[in-house]
Amino acid sequence: MNQPIIKYVLGKVLAIIGLLMIVPIVTGLIYREDEVLAYLIVGVLSFVIGHFSSRKKPKNTMFYLKEGCVVTALSWILISVVGAIPFMLTGEIPNFIDAMFETSSGFTTTGASILQDVEALSHASLIWRSFTHWIGGMGVLVFLLAVIPMSGGSNINLMRAESPGPSVGKLVPKIRSSASILYRIYFGMTVVQIVLLIIAKMPVFDALCITFGSAGTGGFGVRNDSCGSYTPLQQWITAIFFVLFGVNFNFYYYILAKDPKKSLRMEEVRAYFGIIAASVFLIFFNICGRFDTVSAALRAAFFQVGSIITTTGYSTVDFNLWPTFSKAILVLLMFIGACAGSTGGGFKVSRIIIAFKTFLKEANSYIHPKSVKKIKMDGECVEHDVIRSVNVYMITYLTIFVLSVLLVSIEGKDLITSFTSVAATYNNIGPGLAEVGPAANFDSLSYFSKIVLIFDMIAGRLELFPLLILFHPAVLKDIFVKKKCSQSAK
Amino acid sequence: MNQPIIKYVLGKVLAIIGLLMIVPIVTGLIYREDEVLAYLIVGVLSFVIGHFSSRKKPKNTMFYLKEGCVVTALSWILISVVGAIPFMLTGEIPNFIDAMFETSSGFTTTGASILQDVEALSHASLIWRSFTHWIGGMGVLVFLLAVIPMSGGSNINLMRAESPGPSVGKLVPKIRSSASILYRIYFGMTVVQIVLLIIAKMPVFDALCITFGSAGTGGFGVRNDSCGSYTPLQQWITAIFFVLFGVNFNFYYYILAKDPKKSLRMEEVRAYFGIIAASVFLIFFNICGRFDTVSAALRAAFFQVGSIITTTGYSTVDFNLWPTFSKAILVLLMFIGACAGSTGGGFKVSRIIIAFKTFLKEANSYIHPKSVKKIKMDGECVEHDVIRSVNVYMITYLTIFVLSVLLVSIEGKDLITSFTSVAATYNNIGPGLAEVGPAANFDSLSYFSKIVLIFDMIAGRLELFPLLILFHPAVLKDIFVKKKCSQSAK
Repeated sequence: MNQPIIKYVLGKVLAIIGLLMIVPIVTGLIYREDEVLAYLIVGVLSFVIGHFSSRKKPKNTMFYLKEGCVVTALSWILISVVGAIPFMLTGEIPNFIDAMFETSSGFTTTGASILQDVEALSHASLIWRSFTHWIGGMGVLVFLLAVIPMSGGSNINLMRAESPGPSVGKLVPKIRSSASILYRIYFGMTVVQIVLLIIAKMPVFDALCITFGSAGTGGFGVRNDSCGSYTPLQQWITAIFFVLFGVNFNFYYYILAKDPKKSLRMEEVRAYFGIIAASVFLIFFNICGRFDTVSAALRAAFFQVGSIITTTGYSTVDFNLWPTFSKAILVLLMFIGACAGSTGGGFKVSRIIIAFKTFLKEANSYIHPKSVKKIKMDGECVEHDVIRSVNVYMITYLTIFVLSVLLVSIEGKDLITSFTSVAATYNNIGPGLAEVGPAANFDSLSYFSKIVLIFDMIAGRLELFPLLILFHPAVLKDIFVKKKCSQSAK
Repeated sequence: MNQPIIKYVLGKVLAIIGLLMIVPIVTGLIYREDEVLAYLIVGVLSFVIGHFSSRKKPKNTMFYLKEGCVVTALSWILISVVGAIPFMLTGEIPNFIDAMFETSSGFTTTGASILQDVEALSHASLIWRSFTHWIGGMGVLVFLLAVIPMSGGSNINLMRAESPGPSVGKLVPKIRSSASILYRIYFGMTVVQIVLLIIAKMPVFDALCITFGSAGTGGFGVRNDSCGSYTPLQQWITAIFFVLFGVNFNFYYYILAKDPKKSLRMEEVRAYFGIIAASVFLIFFNICGRFDTVSAALRAAFFQVGSIITTTGYSTVDFNLWPTFSKAILVLLMFIGACAGSTGGGFKVSRIIIAFKTFLKEANSYIHPKSVKKIKMDGECVEHDVIRSVNVYMITYLTIFVLSVLLVSIEGKDLITSFTSVAATYNNIGPGLAEVGPAANFDSLSYFSKIVLIFDMIAGRLELFPLLILFHPAVLKDIFVKKKCSQSAK
């Protein structure tokens, strides 16, 4: 394994995180809060240590998929740890596991919180929480690629490890050349949402935090009732935007590239909006009687459906009290997730489509045993490798899910809490049902369960394999045994 | 589609069901019950109608996979309907949907009941309920094959439609030549269990019914507390036997064929016992404190684990009251299911093994991208087609599961009830948790939910595709449009 390049990249990541703490520092200075000191210390230290440990660029900048996965997994663990330290220093979240839960929930754009009283937090910490969503939605390493040039196919191996979705391998050449356009879209949409929310009379600080949470499809709020106390207009803007952030970004790319036909032909995006429309329709009729006005019911249905399918996790009402049918739909949406190539999590709509087409193909083979049909998507044949990887992904996904539920259930919470606490963190959503519902939080869980859920959040965000690879005996040996060798060689 | 042969086979099936009603008829006569009349009428009518509609064997006895699936699905619907009529005639289950729920639960070896007071039933009806398990465990059509010779590969197409497990296609040549041996094993083990239970002082009637339920891994009992009031020895015998009936029957075949080494090399059987041992171990420690003696706790853990993984569904205690960790393990076991080639249901251990190996292979490809390793099972390479079919099966399995939960949740029972009522019927187990737990029954569900669950039971028993094919537009057209044509031609 190319250890120098891993060390180099990790150093750069540390330095960047240090730099990004300028946001809470400035906020803290504006509000004249003492907590700013914690961010100042951690920010400066991270930047200095990171910068000095990555001063020299290694000669061999080539790395393979294995290195790509390892460096991605280690980076995400690193930023979760470093991002957690300010919370401990300010005393706002004194326990390390709690603080790390909160930051990994932030970076992975989950939005699950252990805080019982969000409003008691300093502005610096509130904006740092929300800002981690925005950083995580973008992807730390992919951002790094724009800065450090690597050799040959190295970038692809990093992208493949960090980007969500089944077919990214194919899209990479396009994405690479258009990465800056995609980031400009992300920036642009963020700015538009902030401006619209301010026009709709949301306080500037709230507008910033809520937008960071929507853009990353994260879900940390700044009020104890999430988005419940905002005006209907502010709720509509927020909901429409997190739904837009859940769309495959290639959709916008094609529009900007003046090829709107190609946009409209994207099956994934059409299915995504179809699922949202159907779910809103069904839930709307199921909950209609519980609201005073039709528009309130429609808004509640749209907000919650959009929030769950995009894995954002904001809420305007306590959907834990909704009828079972609506709750069952929401739990299903938790697993479907948003589009590939968006900031959302979950299983991804495109994987669902490929899986469904595989099923149709098999059903047809019973009727016409000799027909040979290829599975198509957006008019093009889906390569066999993609289908296989979708299937393997499903197996891995289910295995980790089941094991996590078993581990979390050891502490003896009810089954719904155990099941949905894993579903909500693993799919990077945020709130679950019952004891971890939208009106509650994850604080009542044991530290053991929290560690399991931290693992699930990072595994879910990195789409499983990069994190799992870290536990492969060959990789563990590479990391630990060789390190010892090089130390003893010194 | 070869309609004459379908009609022919359905006629034979009807005649056989009529014949098999001799069991409740004899029982009713022994106990001098009035209910015997209902079985006499239905039995004679079925036999006569079935016999006369299949007098002439069609010239063309060839049929393809499509016909195999259609005839299998229709047969199972037919026997569920015919088997339900006596319950309605005796007035013991007056409603048709309830009666059909009970019989399809019987034939599919599910064991889910809508009866609140089993002990109020006549002996004739009690033994008919249990006997349907025994028939269903064996498979109606595969039994038929031993009687009617078909052309060429036709038998394989029938077997593939009715037999459980992923790799039956490969085993068929073996099974076909050894089908009679497998049936003799089934018979033999049934007799041994009956004798042992009688020696252990269980009443003869109970011993018969409980054995039918164990052999088919069904789960209908004759007492309101399932197996709770039997002695520890009787419970141990029952539990050991349903665990043995959940083993892949090839295991016994190899032993009888004096090739015990091949038996012991069967990975599926080893994994099956491994999963049982691990689950019993974990649950035992989790529930130990709730029992007076260690042996009682061990017996309860072994009985419930064996009952759920083999999808039998008997219970000795109300495991709905167990801690969440134990319940989570039981729910997981519901989905794993027994071995392929056994009488048990569920996803099947061999499919889990293949899926797990596919995952390991993918994980390795991240470390060694160029290695080409084949997946092996029992020392032999698993063909690509088998792996693909396992993946497709998983997709289909999950899709039906999710849709069923959504449909059942419409009536507004809690999520655990909705989820486990589907899990317990779809995997042919019997009891679920909460309102459909072992101390309760399925009567409180709406008729709509019951219809969904009847579909799930049959789909689960036939391993999905044969039943689904029935809803394929091409098949529907074949069945209905052509029938009309032939009618108008008359």
